[in-house]
Amino acid sequence: MNYRVLNVETIIDYISNIKSVMNYFGSDEIRADEIGDGNLNYVYKISSVKNPQKALIAKQAVPFLRCVGEDFPLSRERMIYEIRALQKFYTIFPSFVPKIHHASEEMSLVVMDYLGSHIIMRKGLIGGVKYKNFSGHISTYMAATLYYTSSLYLSSAQKRELVERFNGNRELCKLTEDLVFSFPFMEHETNDNENVENNPDAQKLFSDMEFKEKVLELKYKFMTQSDALLHGDLHTGSIMINENDTYIIDPEFAFVGPFGFDVGALLANLVNNYIHHSVVTKDEDYKSWLLLTIKDILEKFSEKFLSFWSESKESALLVDGYLDEVSLKNYKERFVKNILRDSVGFAGCKMARRVYGVAGVEEIRGIEDEALRADAERMALKIAREFVIKYDKIESIDEILEIMKNAG
Amino acid sequence: MNYRVLNVETIIDYISNIKSVMNYFGSDEIRADEIGDGNLNYVYKISSVKNPQKALIAKQAVPFLRCVGEDFPLSRERMIYEIRALQKFYTIFPSFVPKIHHASEEMSLVVMDYLGSHIIMRKGLIGGVKYKNFSGHISTYMAATLYYTSSLYLSSAQKRELVERFNGNRELCKLTEDLVFSFPFMEHETNDNENVENNPDAQKLFSDMEFKEKVLELKYKFMTQSDALLHGDLHTGSIMINENDTYIIDPEFAFVGPFGFDVGALLANLVNNYIHHSVVTKDEDYKSWLLLTIKDILEKFSEKFLSFWSESKESALLVDGYLDEVSLKNYKERFVKNILRDSVGFAGCKMARRVYGVAGVEEIRGIEDEALRADAERMALKIAREFVIKYDKIESIDEILEIMKNAG
Repeated sequence: MNYRVLNVETIIDYISNIKSVMNYFGSDEIRADEIGDGNLNYVYKISSVKNPQKALIAKQAVPFLRCVGEDFPLSRERMIYEIRALQKFYTIFPSFVPKIHHASEEMSLVVMDYLGSHIIMRKGLIGGVKYKNFSGHISTYMAATLYYTSSLYLSSAQKRELVERFNGNRELCKLTEDLVFSFPFMEHETNDNENVENNPDAQKLFSDMEFKEKVLELKYKFMTQSDALLHGDLHTGSIMINENDTYIIDPEFAFVGPFGFDVGALLANLVNNYIHHSVVTKDEDYKSWLLLTIKDILEKFSEKFLSFWSESKESALLVDGYLDEVSLKNYKERFVKNILRDSVGFAGCKMARRVYGVAGVEEIRGIEDEALRADAERMALKIAREFVIKYDKIESIDEILEIMKNAG
Repeated sequence: MNYRVLNVETIIDYISNIKSVMNYFGSDEIRADEIGDGNLNYVYKISSVKNPQKALIAKQAVPFLRCVGEDFPLSRERMIYEIRALQKFYTIFPSFVPKIHHASEEMSLVVMDYLGSHIIMRKGLIGGVKYKNFSGHISTYMAATLYYTSSLYLSSAQKRELVERFNGNRELCKLTEDLVFSFPFMEHETNDNENVENNPDAQKLFSDMEFKEKVLELKYKFMTQSDALLHGDLHTGSIMINENDTYIIDPEFAFVGPFGFDVGALLANLVNNYIHHSVVTKDEDYKSWLLLTIKDILEKFSEKFLSFWSESKESALLVDGYLDEVSLKNYKERFVKNILRDSVGFAGCKMARRVYGVAGVEEIRGIEDEALRADAERMALKIAREFVIKYDKIESIDEILEIMKNAG
């Protein structure tokens, strides 16, 4: 099938020829409604006319930045990696990934479950909703997707095949290299430059060489450390949630990279939410819930990662019988501690880049009151700096929480 | 061209149809002589009948282990990576790599310069020959091949293309994972088991969990740290040398891996030679030359790596202007120090694996006197252990030399 951009009408024709999708709708007449307001892709809700709850999502990538238009080209190849990652993560842990009903790399298109009763987690967190199942779900998701795509589980050949399937996602990896690790910490046209000019905090950040050397160390890890298949952009806007379920969507940045990058992205976004509530709502009860949630996620992530690891004796890394039990236990615990350390470092980069970089987060850049927004930015930079400077010496999860509590 | 195994007769027909090779011989009649005694490939000298000095080498991989026969299959795909690596390294620094006159990935065959006036360096070193140009040559070769294939020089996309070209070399990477990092440190059928049974030194090594945990750390780096295109097997048997020239051959293990692995392989082999002379010839003058040579190689490698790095301002890693000059200098010096540290660790693994593992080195396993050979093995294990345990805390090149001097 040759690639062509579909619209709200032609997508019905396209869908009507896809058996797996039509099996879902049976004999129902279907309609399409454009629902996406994303920057990159077109998103349609495909639903039964007589039963609108019976619905799927169709998402198609176009070869330009959708929010700007055809003058801003961006390769649609990214959908290849989103499809491959959704499929891979679904096979690892289906309960946290929307089911795929149809995918076409040629058409840069995927049809999957419609999550009609879920909201984007960031909105829920800003609204002060407590998700009691979240730490359990996300820790399982991260431990499973990272462990089962790593050299700790796969054979040497399987790991290289995985690298091969995702190595081509160069355009989005390059975006992260630039927009997370470099441009937000120097004068650059892509920054939120209205906020940078005559801002002593921005100038202080841009000239903080101790911080920036450590960021460079982390950027190098991002580029060269091939631990596991990452989601690559695991912020709270990539999570669809309700009281019961958690779904992780939009893995278009997927590639084989360092373990700590996904965990760090999530941590950064929870800390940004903590900052929002520290400065805007001053809701101490919610802040305590966030602190507990972070602690719980990191503890459970470590436990589950080690638990998955205990089930397999042989892998690219391990030959059964190579280490005795005590040494193997020590080795694994040190290994997981290093994942947490890297996570803290990456979280610091991800938080700091949101302050002056091209893509702010709603929790901070969305604060309308200028003085409060400046308070939130300072708090974010303070925590981010400590995370980045201290990451490789962090000994416990409590130290991470202390850094947060002392900043606000 | 469909693959077929050539012999001393059919290779003449094959060669006669290759324009680039026939241009070299002009109108001369040519002959072929099998000269290789390698384990893996067939090697022929193709020469002019009337002027035997006018010669090239043709090397063809076969889909089995040549020294055993067709019953021991080994994919001939390895020649794809040898050809690609020879071509890549030749473009980086042609004076240290034999010139390729013809290469065919389909035929698993390469035709290159005949190095008739050079010997395998290991034989020269055992014979006590001092190569005055060697440290200059090899430090340039290593600094150039590693720097120019790393994220410190390449763009993000170029680096991913390089990974793609070599990621498939899975069979030989797996060989290294098993035979360098795992099997030689545990009971295993591939070991030199006559020497393992009832040998208290072997039992001590196999139960040395502190050492083995560190080896596992280094194995993990080997498998997941994608720094630069490595030769992958840079021992002194992969170097052809004479008074004036140094050629690095046989890069069939090439893949994108950790910087320190090539430097460490070379270091290990020079230390093994130092052990040979400590135990067998007791030639103090030659030992001093070896110590000086090692120091010189590591110092010059660091200087040249930094010097190449100073010439480019932008790369996958660096954006011009991101760090000020002082910080950039600090960052780079710390970076190169870490390469040397990893090199010491990898050297330790490579030395230790030669003691009981499947492939010994002539300098140690070739010692006929049993008592002397046992002395050499103990000295190798002592140095290897210190290298592996201390590698990540090494502060200076002199510390490396001290470990060697204190062992013998």
